[in-house]
Parts: sequence; C-alpha cells; structure tokens
Amino acid sequence: MMIHHLQKPSDGAIVKPFGTGSDVNVQEADVIVVGAGFSGLTAARNLHQQGMRVLVLEARDRVGGRTMPGTIAGLTVDLGGMWAGPTQTALIALADEFGVERFAQPLAGKNIVELGQRVTRAEGENFFSARSDAAKLQYSTLLVSIEALAADMPARKHWHWHRAAEFDGMTLAHWLDRVDALPEVKSDMAISCRALLCAEVTQVSFLHFLFYVKSGGGFATLTTATEGAQKWLFKGGVHQIAQHLAASLPPGAVKLGTPVHAITRTPGAVLATSGLESYSARALIMALPPAIAGRIDYQPPLDARRDGLMQRLHMGSVIKCYLAYDRPFWRQAGLNGLVLSDTRVFSPIFDVSPPDQSAGLLCGFIDGRAAVEWSERGSPARRSQFIAESSRWFGDAARNPVDYLDLDWTREPWSRGCYGGYASPGTWTGYGDALCRNEPPIFWAGTETSSIWYCYIEGAIGAGQRAAQEVLADMAKRG
Amino acid sequence: MMIHHLQKPSDGAIVKPFGTGSDVNVQEADVIVVGAGFSGLTAARNLHQQGMRVLVLEARDRVGGRTMPGTIAGLTVDLGGMWAGPTQTALIALADEFGVERFAQPLAGKNIVELGQRVTRAEGENFFSARSDAAKLQYSTLLVSIEALAADMPARKHWHWHRAAEFDGMTLAHWLDRVDALPEVKSDMAISCRALLCAEVTQVSFLHFLFYVKSGGGFATLTTATEGAQKWLFKGGVHQIAQHLAASLPPGAVKLGTPVHAITRTPGAVLATSGLESYSARALIMALPPAIAGRIDYQPPLDARRDGLMQRLHMGSVIKCYLAYDRPFWRQAGLNGLVLSDTRVFSPIFDVSPPDQSAGLLCGFIDGRAAVEWSERGSPARRSQFIAESSRWFGDAARNPVDYLDLDWTREPWSRGCYGGYASPGTWTGYGDALCRNEPPIFWAGTETSSIWYCYIEGAIGAGQRAAQEVLADMAKRG
Repeated sequence: MMIHHLQKPSDGAIVKPFGTGSDVNVQEADVIVVGAGFSGLTAARNLHQQGMRVLVLEARDRVGGRTMPGTIAGLTVDLGGMWAGPTQTALIALADEFGVERFAQPLAGKNIVELGQRVTRAEGENFFSARSDAAKLQYSTLLVSIEALAADMPARKHWHWHRAAEFDGMTLAHWLDRVDALPEVKSDMAISCRALLCAEVTQVSFLHFLFYVKSGGGFATLTTATEGAQKWLFKGGVHQIAQHLAASLPPGAVKLGTPVHAITRTPGAVLATSGLESYSARALIMALPPAIAGRIDYQPPLDARRDGLMQRLHMGSVIKCYLAYDRPFWRQAGLNGLVLSDTRVFSPIFDVSPPDQSAGLLCGFIDGRAAVEWSERGSPARRSQFIAESSRWFGDAARNPVDYLDLDWTREPWSRGCYGGYASPGTWTGYGDALCRNEPPIFWAGTETSSIWYCYIEGAIGAGQRAAQEVLADMAKRG
Repeated sequence: MMIHHLQKPSDGAIVKPFGTGSDVNVQEADVIVVGAGFSGLTAARNLHQQGMRVLVLEARDRVGGRTMPGTIAGLTVDLGGMWAGPTQTALIALADEFGVERFAQPLAGKNIVELGQRVTRAEGENFFSARSDAAKLQYSTLLVSIEALAADMPARKHWHWHRAAEFDGMTLAHWLDRVDALPEVKSDMAISCRALLCAEVTQVSFLHFLFYVKSGGGFATLTTATEGAQKWLFKGGVHQIAQHLAASLPPGAVKLGTPVHAITRTPGAVLATSGLESYSARALIMALPPAIAGRIDYQPPLDARRDGLMQRLHMGSVIKCYLAYDRPFWRQAGLNGLVLSDTRVFSPIFDVSPPDQSAGLLCGFIDGRAAVEWSERGSPARRSQFIAESSRWFGDAARNPVDYLDLDWTREPWSRGCYGGYASPGTWTGYGDALCRNEPPIFWAGTETSSIWYCYIEGAIGAGQRAAQEVLADMAKRG
C-alpha cells in the first residue's frame, strides 16, 4: 500500500495525509466519489447541490461508465447501455431535464426467430411462438411460476426471504431440471438468460434470476420493447446524459485518468491514492461495479462478507457490435430487424436506425459464453461474422455495410464485462448482507447496490441518489 | 495507472521506466516474482540457481503465503497449510533438504462423528459408518462413480474433456440431485466438500469437484490421514520451509511490504510498481492466487478469458482455530481428538499435539459458509464456541485451555480466503484455457495453476518449478 511505503521512516519523509505541509500533494474535498458512471455522477451532483465540495475520480478518460459514445458512419451511437422503459422514471426525468430526446425502438414488421435450425418470421414479441404447444404451455407456466416467486420475494434484502436458501442453492439450470423443463424450454430460457444477464443458465443462481426479474418489474417488462425496458432509444445516445451530469459539476470536480489504487480510512476521514496523487475527504462514495471495486487496496481491509461479495458478483460477458447501411433496407421486406437465434453468434440483433432513416443501423449482441470466444477472435472476425449472419437474415443487401463498430466489454479494464454483476449460487445468501452496509466514511453506490432496476442505468441513478442521502445524513449526525 | 500519470507531460517529468536517468527509482532484475509463497519462492530459487537475478515482491511482512507461523502456549504452529502426504514428493524433498522433520498425524483411538444429532465414537477413517445401510451403500457407490469419472478425465486441461460441458453445467448439489442422492448422503458429501474446498456443494462446479479429486490422487487420498494428504505434520511447522527457501536467495532478493499495484508490460520487459517504487525485469512470474492476481492494474489489460477466470476462481472460506491444553488429555479416554459434525461450528477438529506431548493441541476448522458468519463474530466468540464444543466432546477438562489462537483467512487481505480458488459452474469450460497460457513477459504460477495437488503446497511448488522452466525456455529463445 502506497501510504504504508510513504510512512516508512527509511524513506526520509513522513506523510501527513489528512493535514498540510506534506511533500506529497494531497487534494481535499468534502466527498470523494470513485467512478464517473451514472451512479457516481448522480451522487456527486446531488451532493454538490447541497453545497458539498465533491471530487469524482474516474479511471477512464471519459465519463459515463458502462454507457459510452461511439461513431459509426458519422453517427453517434451508444456502445454501452442505450434503452429506457416507461418505469425507469429517474432516467427519463434526467433526459427531460437535459433535453435529450427519446424515440421508440423500431418494431414495425416481422422479427426473425431461429430455434433449433427452424426459422420463423412473425410480428410481436412472443418470440417462442413457433415451439410445440407442449413447450409453449410449459414455458408460459414456468414464467407464471417465476413471476409469482418474484412477487413473493421481499423488495429489499431478498437474501432474507424464507425461500432464499432453497433457491440460492441452485442455478437456473438446476431449477429447470427440477421442474422437468422440456429441452426446448431450457433452450428458450437460456436465450432469455443470456440476453438479460449476459450469462448462462448454468452460471446464475436461481435466486439471483428471480431477484433480477423482480428488480425490473417482471419478466415481460424486462424482455419487451412495446412497453418494456427496450421501449425507447435516445437521439444522440443515452451517454449524453452522463456528460450533462458531469457538466453540472464545478470545473475540475471530475478527474479523468485517475484510477484509485488504494483507500485508507479512519473513522472521520478517507484518503484515496492514484499513482503519485492523493485525495482526502470526510466521506467517499464507491460507485464502481463490485468486481472492480474489489480490486482496490483497502486499509484497513474490508470485512470478509463484503470482499466475498465482490469476489462473487462476476461481470456478465457481452460484445456490442454495429453494422451501418445507407438505409434500413430490411424494412422494405417487412422485417423489423429484430433477430433471436439459439444457433448463431449474434443474438439478439436490433434495428436501432435513427428516426429520420438517414442510415440503417443494426446492433448485434454476442453475449454469455460466446462473448469470451469472440473476444479472442478479434474485431475483424466479428465484423465478418456479423455481415455473414445479417446477410443470412436480410439478404445480399447486407453484404456491403458502409461501416462497422464494436466494443468488447469483457476487455474494458474498468468494467471487465457488462451489463453488470450476476451471482452464482450461495452468493446472495452468504454475502448479501454486505451489499449496502456502509462502512463510514465509505458508502456504497453503483447499480449493483440497487434493488430496483439492478444492473440498469435506472438502478445506477437510484443508488447514487441513495448514497448521497446517506452521506448527508451521516455528516449531519457527525456535525 | 501510475506510469500513465508519470508520463503525463503536465507532470513535468518523463519517466523512462526501462532506462536510466529517471527521477523515479527503478530497481532492476532479470526476473520479478510476485508473491513469496511456496510457488513464488520455489520459482525464484530455481531461477537463482540458474544464475538469474531475481527479485521477489511480497505484499505481507512475511514469506510463506498461505502458510504462516503462530504461537500458542509457547509452541510454534501452522496457522495456514500444515500437512503432507506420501505422494506430495516435492514438499517432502524440500523438507528433507532443509531438515524439517515430520511426525505422524495422531490417529490412535476413537474419533467422534456427529450426524443428524447422533454421535458415534469409532476407530478408523470410515467416518460415515453410523449411517443406514442404504445411505452407506449409496455413498460408496457415488464415490466409485466420482473416482471413475475423475480417472477418465484428462490429467491436464480437464475443461477439454468430452464430458466437461456436461459436468461444468452443474454444481455438486445439482449432480447429487440428478443421481437421486439420499438426504444423508447429500449431508455427508456436504461435509466432505466443505472440509476439502472450504465451500458448499451448492457453490462448486461438479467438474471442479472431479478435477480436485483427480488432482489429489483420489477421494480416499484427499480425505484420510492414514496414507493420505493428512498423514504428516511438521515439527515446528511447514511454514519453516518457506523461510528456508527465502533464506536460500541472495540478501535483498525478497522485498516484504511491497504489494504490486500495477504491471506494465512490453514484449521484452515488464515494470511492476508498488506505491512510489518501481521494479523492472525481462520477465515476471505471478505467483498469487488468481482472485488476488486479478486485483492488479495491468497495462495493457489482460485478455477477457484470463480476467474472467480470475473473477471466477473464488477463494474458499475458512478460519483456523487452536486450543492449547497442558496435555492431550482426551487420549486417556481412548479418543484421538478427531471430530466431524454436520451440526456444530467446528468441523473437522484434529489433535495436532507435538509428539513429546508437551502440550495438548486441538486444531478446529470453521469452513464454508459458517466461516463468513464467524468472521463477523470475532475471535473472542470463536474462542468461547470452540471451548464449548470441545467440552461437549472431551468433557470438563476441555473447559480450561491454557491458550487460544486463530486466524481468519477470509480477512487476510492478501489471500481473502483459503485454501484456494474453487470454480462455480461455467468457469473451467468458459475460462480454463487462460490458466497456464503465459503472456510473456508474464508467466503464471501459484498452486491454482497446477493440475497435480491443486490448492495444496505440493501444487504450489510444482507450479513454481514449471514457471521457472518456462521463463528460462523463453529467455533462451529470446537470446
């Protein structure tokens, strides 16, 4: 630990981290926020509005966290999070405040669904309608069970639910075995799990899956565009809102390129160090994904339950890829660009073309286990594969895109996966109590600390608001 | 990243990390080894013997990693790894070389086994002999299956086995469900899993469990003292061997109190930074547990598969506790001090008294989920609980120990659990390929990279030997 080193008498210099007169530069603030994603920026803004001097330390050279801009065919798109749904009211309020307009996810026309080599084209979002009656009946019955269990679960601290131990003792795959799910139903649940959590049914605790469903307001809300989480896109991209949040802070309040390597805390003060630079404050809000927050060198060490949780909320695996065409030509063929497949690399694929149809944009996801494979194959191979699969679905016109862009979130050093942390069995019941248990002067934010819209931008904003309130309450108490 | 900061033109100083004339002190070596556990020290020693200038960077103020000394009633004991078995030939060879003597784990007399509130006292290591005939038959049948599967598995890269996907798609609990294991059998497997891996059957991939069994030479070898992994203890403790290894290196070759925060690599050189200090070399051997190695800031970032593996090889949870009495009084009652229980906090308990019986020492483990609970209750509560349970088993004479000592490995900041990394489902098949795939100038060691005696000291030594050879081969190739 750096401070430890500095304090070694043999170094000939004694640091007074929280005082003055030191030969190492220490910048001071009331509150340090680690991470300039939606959660950290929301917390910082709320504290700033309450008169606090805030300092946001961000490892990357940009704000936005798991949202970020990219340019394809001259258009700015979202390389990370991009959608909003009607119940994501905090996100919508911010968008409205900053004048970032939304438009509906294009849906008119037929989508393409490939299940077990069989391809169907149909309207609506009942994607598994080509299955046998037995499979369809079982799938909907199981969804009813899932919704009923999620409804029964407490809204907070789901790991204290009377059925928590039972369901945290199995993966989603294990539960599907227990209820004698048909092979087709298992496959359809695998597609859904992968698309939602960027992880496989064999990896995810069934308790976590139920929590995730509850957190987003139900399975239908999570998986649909019509009135669900994929209802709207943002003109110019949702990442702009993060930039607006950052711009609402005083100049110099956000320090980019400043990864925090170590945090030293005492009852009333905290010191964060990044390379040769140190920052001190009365409180610190940690607004990173748990898997990344766990990589910091804490002195004194965090308790076993929090460290265990940070070890076990693995990041999902996803690569987001865009193909640009001069227009959304698939619409002329009556297709809406949406593709789901249990066979191909890219699933789902969405048409995310701008409303003026000045370009045709396909956004394809490689998620779950396939993302690890395709991370190693590299961007040119992904481009070829995406073109080949798009041509399969949309014909020869797809062979000649005007541009390609992708982002491999599994390689992003300050996220190491997306959309967020998922729990394998035993994690929530063993370690959940640490989730929002603040250890002043450290307070925990980030979408993974939210029980509403966990792993969504909405959850990040809510967690940032909550953490800011908790810091204010703690400071009021301390006086 | 620190170097990044230093290189910022605005800092007014340009670092030449691999050259001279810098205003930041850079110490040079041929090979940097990160971690002074058995694996790192073995690698360093082998390289030193080949004429390499080695520098071992260790975060703690001691060598030995997951072995370490403690003092109880004036005796030095092992607070970490402590046993050796007959097939752990590398460990035994080192012990012999350094003159560290072994003695047999005391076993004479009856052990105590509590299963479902029923307590039995019996000789031998067939611990579940009090079960019903049906349960005993099924337990041994399942062990035969496990041994047969482990035998069929390839000795290396088990994730490429033709049945890997099948068994990595389930936890051990899921497999026990599939084979219709009886409740008693499930409970007995849970005891074994906890004692071996410090994790629950619901957390561990069945593929990982099979690999672990194979790695240690079979279930019987792993779980017994008679001719197995718990056959010998070391006079004065196994940790002494780490100290001898360190002493065999040149003065100054091991730098304690030096946690590596960042590693920057180029094709032929590597720079490790710890606080304000930097170290450069032609190669670096990473000899930390994967979960801890993953916390370092690598530039350029590691690939997705390796990072994903480091995220997912969680450390087991264990607290090791000692009670000291003036003599091993339980032996007079015909007991050997060994206790297994599915009900109590401490299981297993072993008599680890010195051969001269100058004291009676009980060593009790809190492992798996209970370790997380008891980490928070603190050492005084563990002491009371251990005394209460020992008194239950060994009578009133156990009420007045002369000393108590424990180590909560879940709180050790540079291990964050013990004995080692275990894999939840999907980890090995998804990420296994990264395990020993060196990325020169970075080479990977640590017991978790060993396919023989994975998570044992023996595996650590083997991995250190292998990594040293790989570095030498790479350097010979590079010239």
